[in-house]
Amino acid sequence: MSEGIDFKARIEQDAKIREHMDRIGRKILVMSGKGGVGKTTVTVNLANALVDAGCTVGILDTDLHGPNVAKMLGCEDGRLDSEDGVSFLPVEARPGLKVVSLSFAIPDPDAPIVWRGPMKMSAIRQFLADVDWGDLDFLLIDSPPGTGDEQLTVCQSIPEMTGSIIVTTPQAVAVLDARRSVNFSRKLGVAIIGVVENMSGLFCPQCHTEIPVFGIGGGQKMAQQMHVPFLGRIPLEVPLREAEDDGASWVAAAPDSQSAVAFKHIAALLNTGTACSTSRDTSFAGTSDCAPEFCSSCASDCPSRKQ
Amino acid sequence: MSEGIDFKARIEQDAKIREHMDRIGRKILVMSGKGGVGKTTVTVNLANALVDAGCTVGILDTDLHGPNVAKMLGCEDGRLDSEDGVSFLPVEARPGLKVVSLSFAIPDPDAPIVWRGPMKMSAIRQFLADVDWGDLDFLLIDSPPGTGDEQLTVCQSIPEMTGSIIVTTPQAVAVLDARRSVNFSRKLGVAIIGVVENMSGLFCPQCHTEIPVFGIGGGQKMAQQMHVPFLGRIPLEVPLREAEDDGASWVAAAPDSQSAVAFKHIAALLNTGTACSTSRDTSFAGTSDCAPEFCSSCASDCPSRKQ
Repeated sequence: MSEGIDFKARIEQDAKIREHMDRIGRKILVMSGKGGVGKTTVTVNLANALVDAGCTVGILDTDLHGPNVAKMLGCEDGRLDSEDGVSFLPVEARPGLKVVSLSFAIPDPDAPIVWRGPMKMSAIRQFLADVDWGDLDFLLIDSPPGTGDEQLTVCQSIPEMTGSIIVTTPQAVAVLDARRSVNFSRKLGVAIIGVVENMSGLFCPQCHTEIPVFGIGGGQKMAQQMHVPFLGRIPLEVPLREAEDDGASWVAAAPDSQSAVAFKHIAALLNTGTACSTSRDTSFAGTSDCAPEFCSSCASDCPSRKQ
Repeated sequence: MSEGIDFKARIEQDAKIREHMDRIGRKILVMSGKGGVGKTTVTVNLANALVDAGCTVGILDTDLHGPNVAKMLGCEDGRLDSEDGVSFLPVEARPGLKVVSLSFAIPDPDAPIVWRGPMKMSAIRQFLADVDWGDLDFLLIDSPPGTGDEQLTVCQSIPEMTGSIIVTTPQAVAVLDARRSVNFSRKLGVAIIGVVENMSGLFCPQCHTEIPVFGIGGGQKMAQQMHVPFLGRIPLEVPLREAEDDGASWVAAAPDSQSAVAFKHIAALLNTGTACSTSRDTSFAGTSDCAPEFCSSCASDCPSRKQ
């Protein structure tokens, strides 16, 4: 297929990607093995919690088939503008939070995006090369479920990715798929920042019984088994889902809810670097070559060591 | 890219696909816009309900990134065998229920399948051409979420697809994505058999309050708005999820549970054809050109008309 690639254009695009990415502190891929585990919920709430803590944050939604980030942030009417006719400016969801989503470029939200792999790859690279994020502390990249074209393209195109966050529910089938995401990260040499267990139990609003809708603890157990940091449990909360459907910030609306506390805790870990492991900085645990024998001698305060 | 295609081999492969597919009564694509809405749960339970009703059923799991069908059917240790060295025989999950999944071909369940689009397309076509299903009443094709390579390949490769079932949760973001699946089916001329609203409320096991975990009614409303048949609501049930994790048949284990009753009702609709619409047989409602004006004059007992 190499006949089809314009190498000069590709090298120029790589240079533009590097130029934009060099102005961003931490570039984090939020991934999941299975869909519907709340990857976008985690991305959006972590972003809001980081902005509340004074960081500048960008979200790049690379899920071309179901770009829901904009809806959850209440900015689904945003459009990509350009000042210089060369770069696009992200949509500002709130001060300090910039968003780029394919949904800004498609006029009809009901239209299916029927694209084969190479088209997706090209669209994602164009987003990376042509969006002028400015200076950011964090870029969270919301990727579609699985380990396919989108994740490959992001990992291969972004120089010095800080690491990946793997979102799963406690359900056995979701955990099985999340294990594949862990191995995907390792295979591509992307450091694993940690596992988030989402939809981890639900408290009945009437009688306050904890209901194990999708089980409890499956993600945490997997993180221990696979020797990657565990970042926290997020319970299911009906008002959180409703806030999401309305595009409201949950961590601001219900700061004392269990889920908001968990999101803020994870955001603090990302912000201080305690949960953050990069391939370049091996003083943090949970790197892509993190292994049982390494764990016992590891000097970091990686959350997975404490368990 | 046409340089790379061996047209003779492709025509031969098409002939083999037709030969196998001609022995199958109804070929149904189970799809969802968003992941994690329980598409595999719906596929597996409908299959079990159809087998209980005396049908012979096959399930083809085309979700290469997270092939969970085998786990939910308790046959994850199955392997694809060949009698003649040419075709593969599906794994028999139980008498009357045959399964083919990529998980039967990969030795390590934790290994991520890092495949770009063209490789996926080729794998799915090989499954369609080389698996000898024998005579079946139903083939349910469990496709990954979204409207990408896998769904395109299935729709373009299978002659005379009976139609698609679209699974969604009631949550606004899931419904938004499901609308895209409806339009995808219409765009490709695949008849829409109907919409299933999964994870539709949860009854607290303690106090029996109905909790709208992901909302209630969103999928039904969407089906009405888009003029496609609505097949039914499946509530969340913790024991169903546990049965799934154990690979047990839920419709057999708890035949009187709300979800099992709903699955059996949908299976009966598929089996009698009342909910079944094909592009070839327009006596059924809900075809790809089903429209409001058509609905009022439609003679069928399509479930969407009754609302």
